[in-house]
Amino acid sequence: MKNLKGACMFGQSGGPTSVINASAAGVFIEALSQKNITKVYGLAHGIKGLLEENFYDMGKEEEKELLLLKNTPSSNLGSVRYKLKDSSVDETDYKKILEVFKKYDVRYFFYNGGNDSMDTCNKISKYLIKAGYDCNIIGVPKTIDNDLFGTDHCPGYASAAKYIATTLMELNLDAKVYDKGQVVVIEIMGRNAGWLTAAASLAGYKGLGADLIYLPEVPFSVEKFKKDVKRVMDENGGKCIACVSEGIRDKDKNFIVEKLSQEKAKDNFGHTQLGGLAIQLADLISQEYGVKVRGVEFSLMQRSAAHLASGVDVEEAFLAGREAVKVACAGITDKMVAFERDMSSGSYKCVFKLLPLDVVANAEKTVPLEWITEDGIGLKKEFIDYALPLIQGESKAPLEDGLPRFSKLKKIQAGK
Amino acid sequence: MKNLKGACMFGQSGGPTSVINASAAGVFIEALSQKNITKVYGLAHGIKGLLEENFYDMGKEEEKELLLLKNTPSSNLGSVRYKLKDSSVDETDYKKILEVFKKYDVRYFFYNGGNDSMDTCNKISKYLIKAGYDCNIIGVPKTIDNDLFGTDHCPGYASAAKYIATTLMELNLDAKVYDKGQVVVIEIMGRNAGWLTAAASLAGYKGLGADLIYLPEVPFSVEKFKKDVKRVMDENGGKCIACVSEGIRDKDKNFIVEKLSQEKAKDNFGHTQLGGLAIQLADLISQEYGVKVRGVEFSLMQRSAAHLASGVDVEEAFLAGREAVKVACAGITDKMVAFERDMSSGSYKCVFKLLPLDVVANAEKTVPLEWITEDGIGLKKEFIDYALPLIQGESKAPLEDGLPRFSKLKKIQAGK
Repeated sequence: MKNLKGACMFGQSGGPTSVINASAAGVFIEALSQKNITKVYGLAHGIKGLLEENFYDMGKEEEKELLLLKNTPSSNLGSVRYKLKDSSVDETDYKKILEVFKKYDVRYFFYNGGNDSMDTCNKISKYLIKAGYDCNIIGVPKTIDNDLFGTDHCPGYASAAKYIATTLMELNLDAKVYDKGQVVVIEIMGRNAGWLTAAASLAGYKGLGADLIYLPEVPFSVEKFKKDVKRVMDENGGKCIACVSEGIRDKDKNFIVEKLSQEKAKDNFGHTQLGGLAIQLADLISQEYGVKVRGVEFSLMQRSAAHLASGVDVEEAFLAGREAVKVACAGITDKMVAFERDMSSGSYKCVFKLLPLDVVANAEKTVPLEWITEDGIGLKKEFIDYALPLIQGESKAPLEDGLPRFSKLKKIQAGK
Repeated sequence: MKNLKGACMFGQSGGPTSVINASAAGVFIEALSQKNITKVYGLAHGIKGLLEENFYDMGKEEEKELLLLKNTPSSNLGSVRYKLKDSSVDETDYKKILEVFKKYDVRYFFYNGGNDSMDTCNKISKYLIKAGYDCNIIGVPKTIDNDLFGTDHCPGYASAAKYIATTLMELNLDAKVYDKGQVVVIEIMGRNAGWLTAAASLAGYKGLGADLIYLPEVPFSVEKFKKDVKRVMDENGGKCIACVSEGIRDKDKNFIVEKLSQEKAKDNFGHTQLGGLAIQLADLISQEYGVKVRGVEFSLMQRSAAHLASGVDVEEAFLAGREAVKVACAGITDKMVAFERDMSSGSYKCVFKLLPLDVVANAEKTVPLEWITEDGIGLKKEFIDYALPLIQGESKAPLEDGLPRFSKLKKIQAGK
């Protein structure tokens, strides 16, 4: 436990979310108010900005613009996908990081991201401890995938879930509009964990959901899929809505999208990309049953629709950023801020806890199998009870000319 | 000009929009208040419900649910795509319609839709006039495509435009997040008219738009597209966002999506569907320049995202429904309610006018070529001035459990 005085650095990492900037706002606003923090730096493109001494002086931003970050989607400082090598294999990056920290007297480091980013955060933390350099390091969780270990949920997930549930309700009404049959297949993000696809069941809870929901947690069979769709069509005048996770796999762990692509033709680069799954599954149904089909992909919208963010999510993301700074200033290091659900009052409340970075760095949390219905095409009440409190409330950017007024930072260079 | 007493019928037709039910609410609420209207019927699936005597007694609905229709997307009564044959070719449908109108004493008929629906409305109107059956018939405009002739704009367009502009702003931030190049191609609806794709320029007006915008009004060259993308990439660190209308065609009027599909392979049914254009264009860029690409389709979301509807659009759609009933009750027939922009006060105001049904039935309004920039990849200020007033304000369903509470009608059968 060390009470340090010096500069702080904050970086964003991994895929963008609707609320990642809310955590940034929390870190910046709290850090700027802490007397032990002499300078507040925002890294351009996360760890890359650190290695290249490319970062901004956040103290020179207007408070109004920092507050607008709360409702500005995507990573405003720029993000990165950069995997640090193990320091025992290659120390180059670590030496550079230590050099930069010393040069700018960085005594606080906050890193915002998912599994891979917490791995980065953990590696830096462990290296600096070994090197005897005092720096309080706290991870701030973020991922729409909701797959971080040890935390009740992750900032970013609830807003994506709210987008998925709301949009599915709207598409449900759209898909039912004609008195002819139609099969709509909707593809939702989530390569290994089905949390996002499971959010489709929230629309079902309101009576306007999908007939079939397939998560990556359950092995997917194309033959069973065809039969499931046929059964629903027979019951519903030829209509069926199916939601599939991009990451569904067969019992041998092969991605369905790759299998289907390979069955058609090898793509031009000899590799197959995730994506295009909805259209391929819809095509299969069209070929099999000769019905009208449509493949829909929620694509980038599900992770950047800040106009539809969950109020709970925005506020929790913001507070998680503040909490990281507070605990670091209280002398804590080598932890990630995590959420614990407190239902003791009978209603949802979220409290913070701290997890060791090395515990979260190499684990993944998927949807509990016991929350999935036995037929593998739906979610049980346990999931609804879990997810519903998270998508409550609204929080969005003010409108200017009828369109969102997102944050505009000056980004004044403070590195080299 | 005849002041008639009797029942009224209302039907929805063509593709759904975010605000088509707002017009339905306007028709129902106004009609239920008119003493000359004895019964208010809502047709199941438009003209099909009329031919099959399948319609509901709207007087039996709760007013609260009728008001919730204002913010409920898609056609709540069900829609239809049914083309009436010319009465000189086949009178069967017309005779049935006349029989139904007589049986239920229908003296008012309101039909809500786009070009094809106004054609239906016009044909019925002309037939009844010829048959000497008194019935006041008024068309209510609706189409996200905004291509109805003679009206400043169409209900449904502004909400889709607001969705496109807002979502593009969010995707613009998402697409810029890494410090690596990426080309994003976004496909927007609009087969013949580029109004929807043009709405991408509203995001550009706010500084977060697309680099390239291609409307169907301008012949599309794949070679020029590649060069345009390359130029933008060179200027922007490898980043480029392009918006394309699903209906872009080459100089010989061939749809680009069909050309690209045919070049690859004939699909399994020997025909090519619109859709998949974004992914195909993105693939082309990937092959040509070896950069990371992503194809995004705004798909059904752009026409059903009621949570992001324009307040102006919802209110105008509602009032257009009311206006149709009011003028019909004042004895007017054989017209469509249309909008005229009144800028005399210096700010946007919209007033109603009436257009003969046969004038709107067979005409299409595209984006004026003089509003498109000379290089064919953007819109001029004239378009911004035109579209910006339309996307102002917000209007959406109340939330229940954090999700929209859409209208739930009882739909009590009043036909056979």
